[in-house]
Amino acid sequence: MANDHPLLGVKALTFDVFGTVVDWRGSIAREIKSVGMSKGFIQDWDSFADEWRAGYGPSMNRVRTGELEWTNIDALHRIILDNLLENFCITGLNEDEKEHLNKAWHRLDPWPDSVEGLTLLKNDYMISSLSNGNVALLVNMAKYGGLPWDTVLSAELVRHYKPDREAYMSTSEFLGVPIDQVMMVAAHKNDLKAARSFGMRTAYVPRPFEHGPNTEVDNSPENYIDIMANNFIDLSEKLAEIRNGLLTKN
Amino acid sequence: MANDHPLLGVKALTFDVFGTVVDWRGSIAREIKSVGMSKGFIQDWDSFADEWRAGYGPSMNRVRTGELEWTNIDALHRIILDNLLENFCITGLNEDEKEHLNKAWHRLDPWPDSVEGLTLLKNDYMISSLSNGNVALLVNMAKYGGLPWDTVLSAELVRHYKPDREAYMSTSEFLGVPIDQVMMVAAHKNDLKAARSFGMRTAYVPRPFEHGPNTEVDNSPENYIDIMANNFIDLSEKLAEIRNGLLTKN
Repeated sequence: MANDHPLLGVKALTFDVFGTVVDWRGSIAREIKSVGMSKGFIQDWDSFADEWRAGYGPSMNRVRTGELEWTNIDALHRIILDNLLENFCITGLNEDEKEHLNKAWHRLDPWPDSVEGLTLLKNDYMISSLSNGNVALLVNMAKYGGLPWDTVLSAELVRHYKPDREAYMSTSEFLGVPIDQVMMVAAHKNDLKAARSFGMRTAYVPRPFEHGPNTEVDNSPENYIDIMANNFIDLSEKLAEIRNGLLTKN
Repeated sequence: MANDHPLLGVKALTFDVFGTVVDWRGSIAREIKSVGMSKGFIQDWDSFADEWRAGYGPSMNRVRTGELEWTNIDALHRIILDNLLENFCITGLNEDEKEHLNKAWHRLDPWPDSVEGLTLLKNDYMISSLSNGNVALLVNMAKYGGLPWDTVLSAELVRHYKPDREAYMSTSEFLGVPIDQVMMVAAHKNDLKAARSFGMRTAYVPRPFEHGPNTEVDNSPENYIDIMANNFIDLSEKLAEIRNGLLTKN
């Protein structure tokens, strides 16, 4: 029997980054804690990280709806940060210190399997980010964490945040392959649902600690998910099984 | 004495690619020769490569002047190729074979020092392409030759070919550093002259075999060139000397 698995045509994998490739919550909490220790204030660092992240979606929506002109994530993170510092009654940071703290988003730790998994996947596919993070953030993060991207793709390049169609379709244009040969990899079902609606293939890699130790993980299958994996090494193995004809479409 | 060399602030290096990082002429001649051998036609392979390349500037100028709407390099290369096949009286190639030959520009060999030199430079700087080649071409070429870019930047991202201002200025925006902290690296003086006119730092790395064994190399200094190097390893050493205060501005 010929190997006619529908994922055999996949040429490129594009990855959501915050939460899927890197642990934003642990990394941000660590950075704000370090600032707090040196400045002598005490806060609930995890809540600070959670609230910073919670401002992210609504900020992007202001851009997506046109209320705000194009503003990159560094600038949106800074707007949210300035509000948070006020709400948490944190004072005593000068401009350089605030800017350094804002760039904590450029210094997020990869999940333990990320670098090894991406390195394996890079042998057989083009691999790139497809993140709402701006290019500079993604490049700095890749250098910080050793992420071996073939290139960095970002919503910034088309000035449309996910889940806008333009962001997903840009992968096909920039990587030079039809959209159904590009697979979106994400820990978030809504990202995959949007990607599929524009014709992409999808891989779901839930991250059980994205929101801390009490993260509730949704492992249920969906008709818009082609493949589910525990981590990037597992994803690399599952895709190898498909290429070797060991996994067939059920 | 404080080390106040003007190149100390450089954070990112952006590279011209065709001729500067890779040997387009030797690689293209090899590919067209291989097609010729299998199809039984004989031509002057070097001239074919030279004429293909000669069509490149005028094609881009048609886009730059607005005569042609945005067209990426893959498509421009194909237009030139179709004319060349006719002029060289080469027949017998089907569409797949023509398309494969056109993608020869995705399979160009790095100069012998390129991978090692870029790897060294990557330790201390963000490194990216800044090429008129489209993103897919540059990503495929990087995979083919092992070029360790932090990311791929291309004229395609802003739909303006070098030497348009937009192409050079995009490096500052996407890499998140002021334009005078970005250094353009090229084997072509006109590229560096344009880069400098928009505020970039410049490194000249002449490639004595770009146009074959009889390439005439222009080694004369220019007021728009900050540093001249024999190859990328030499460039990495010269920049290290500057960082270590061993080279001071004369």
